[in-house]
Amino acid sequence: MGRFSVALVHHPVRHKDGSTITSAVTNTDLHDIARSCTAFGVDRFYIVTPVHAQRELCRRLVHHWTQGAGARKNPDRALAFSCMEVVGSIQEALALESAHAGAPAVAWSTAARAAPGTMSFPEARQRIDELPAVLMLLGTAHGLADDALALCTGRLEPIRGRPRADGTEYNHLSVRAAAAIMLERLRGPR
Amino acid sequence: MGRFSVALVHHPVRHKDGSTITSAVTNTDLHDIARSCTAFGVDRFYIVTPVHAQRELCRRLVHHWTQGAGARKNPDRALAFSCMEVVGSIQEALALESAHAGAPAVAWSTAARAAPGTMSFPEARQRIDELPAVLMLLGTAHGLADDALALCTGRLEPIRGRPRADGTEYNHLSVRAAAAIMLERLRGPR
Repeated sequence: MGRFSVALVHHPVRHKDGSTITSAVTNTDLHDIARSCTAFGVDRFYIVTPVHAQRELCRRLVHHWTQGAGARKNPDRALAFSCMEVVGSIQEALALESAHAGAPAVAWSTAARAAPGTMSFPEARQRIDELPAVLMLLGTAHGLADDALALCTGRLEPIRGRPRADGTEYNHLSVRAAAAIMLERLRGPR
Repeated sequence: MGRFSVALVHHPVRHKDGSTITSAVTNTDLHDIARSCTAFGVDRFYIVTPVHAQRELCRRLVHHWTQGAGARKNPDRALAFSCMEVVGSIQEALALESAHAGAPAVAWSTAARAAPGTMSFPEARQRIDELPAVLMLLGTAHGLADDALALCTGRLEPIRGRPRADGTEYNHLSVRAAAAIMLERLRGPR
């Protein structure tokens, strides 16, 4: 069976005004998504940021929870953080996944916005089993920028929930909740 | 179709040592779970705490995001927070749900720990459609205390994900991620 990994992307991502920015790493994202990845058997959880100081901060957090005082206090958290890897770019995460798989890894984008040609979750679930390595990109801020989308060979459909009592739909989820729901749809028990 | 609501319980919950405590309200929980509830058409999202000052704080947050500066800055967040209601006890949330439904509401517990007689998610999904009003309790800290469980007529099975590469399973999710996954399983499109 193929590899399946997740990358939390802090660059290149969109600002509210549409420009491309680098977002700041959020501690709660790391904890929540590492725990969800571990619960759904994800191979690696990459934290992507080109900012050296942010990578150093992330590595200190990983060290604290996997080898430092955090690991002694909370072994469950140590296990979750052990799937985390801090990298400078999406390309670096893809290269690592390709090396692990011994075959080219592909990147898939995710977004709250609809777009033509998206994969449904059931379709994506099946393709993961057929491919050597898939890296699912999660955008922070207002989503993945075009330069990130250009690296992707597939795009997942937006998460649809259930209409509200007045018939309207809402898909403004936190990246933490969106990651959990997508992992359930792609990797949950069936 | 019946009502389905969610209560985030800060008392009575378990401390790590097994004693019953009141946990502090966490801002990220409110934002993430309100957004997930809104995406899955949940009727009300109750914040339960017996601490007057914490209820006042929550009400200030709700006011900020539904009527204050937050609402003007982010209308999507205003919509999410509009499903939120701050109450002093689980019993108060149940009474409100019963009044809305015009029939007795039932409470269901959730937990990471296995227990005899739990409902599967598919079974629970069907029962929601048959009952006038279900209130799903989410525990903070180390989970719902016995006094909370005693109010419940049903208990959901723990979330199972997918075994890791070494065959072990992990179910130590954040309450934010667990809420998202349970809403997907109970209320997601089928």
